Amino acid sequence: MKLARPVTRLTEALERLPGIGPKTAQRLAFYLLHVPQAELTELAESLENLKTQTVLCSLCKNVAETDPCPICADSARDRTAIMVVESPLDVLVLEQTGKYQGLYHVLHGVISPLNNIGPDEIYLKDLLDRVGESQPSINEVILATDPTMEGEATALYIQKQLKHLMNGKLTLTRLGSGLPVGADLEYADEVTLARAIEGRSKITTIP
Amino acid sequence: MKLARPVTRLTEALERLPGIGPKTAQRLAFYLLHVPQAELTELAESLENLKTQTVLCSLCKNVAETDPCPICADSARDRTAIMVVESPLDVLVLEQTGKYQGLYHVLHGVISPLNNIGPDEIYLKDLLDRVGESQPSINEVILATDPTMEGEATALYIQKQLKHLMNGKLTLTRLGSGLPVGADLEYADEVTLARAIEGRSKITTIP
Repeated sequence: MKLARPVTRLTEALERLPGIGPKTAQRLAFYLLHVPQAELTELAESLENLKTQTVLCSLCKNVAETDPCPICADSARDRTAIMVVESPLDVLVLEQTGKYQGLYHVLHGVISPLNNIGPDEIYLKDLLDRVGESQPSINEVILATDPTMEGEATALYIQKQLKHLMNGKLTLTRLGSGLPVGADLEYADEVTLARAIEGRSKITTIP
Repeated sequence: MKLARPVTRLTEALERLPGIGPKTAQRLAFYLLHVPQAELTELAESLENLKTQTVLCSLCKNVAETDPCPICADSARDRTAIMVVESPLDVLVLEQTGKYQGLYHVLHGVISPLNNIGPDEIYLKDLLDRVGESQPSINEVILATDPTMEGEATALYIQKQLKHLMNGKLTLTRLGSGLPVGADLEYADEVTLARAIEGRSKITTIP
């Protein structure tokens, strides 16, 4: 006996999502059979519109509805600091601490040779160009990649690439105190993140 | 800072699904931002079409594309036996054992007073009508609800309701041997299920 094709089609589409295996996909599909059509349509429309109604901000590469994004367009923000993060979710949790008033740069990933992700696969050149072009108006670049192996490696790479700009007034800092090593930035609690922002440490030696 | 509305909308829609919390929903939404639009459209369409392109078989209440469903329409199947199950997924796993050639009846739930689900909320009356009307052509009704508290209670309820038909040749059986009590039928392995079908026990005493 085969399942009805619409059910199989949905199950297969759900299985492709991260963290959803064949059994979970099947359960979700059969759960959705009991959901009102209006709710299904709503979910379908939000999926359909997810990418068509959003853009990447041309400055910071964050996901937004407008270009530039609300943060880059906000004249009240401190335009002399750029916080470099891995994902848009990181911007969200950092904003929730209320401790940071500067701008952001979203890399959309980290350098990870094991997964075939080099500096060209993430928005790293955009960051270097942005920092280079904005000189000497930028005082500080805060490296806020996750304190994981890949995040540290990416931070190190950025340090090396920005080394030539550091004879001026540009300061390079790294989120430090408070973040337990090996953790995932977006799961950190707000107090830990706030401490990490307050206690960021200046990078003095560059390899 | 607010997330872009299309992202928030999708996150909220995903959160309503069982087993998906706010963090997982956010992760899925941001994962989907990196998925090709064609794949998003495919997922959206399968959701949209899930219910519009499927029907409940008017006989067995299984989810199908045609009415009657392929099992009910199959003239090679044994029309003297009806296996009563909780969900369409149960039909799927039972069919995979290849041990059963009769018909099914899908209740779409179990009697569960704690969740406000009584006999009228599931397709129980349809089963009783179906068995009553088909007399004396049905020899056996196999109660294959999950061996959980609610499943056992539902099986007991059906026994009582069919009691008056049992003076004829109708036999009432219950999937028995092999299924560990407290387990969920759809997660059972095929061998266990096959044994349960082979070793079903005749119900002799009715409370």
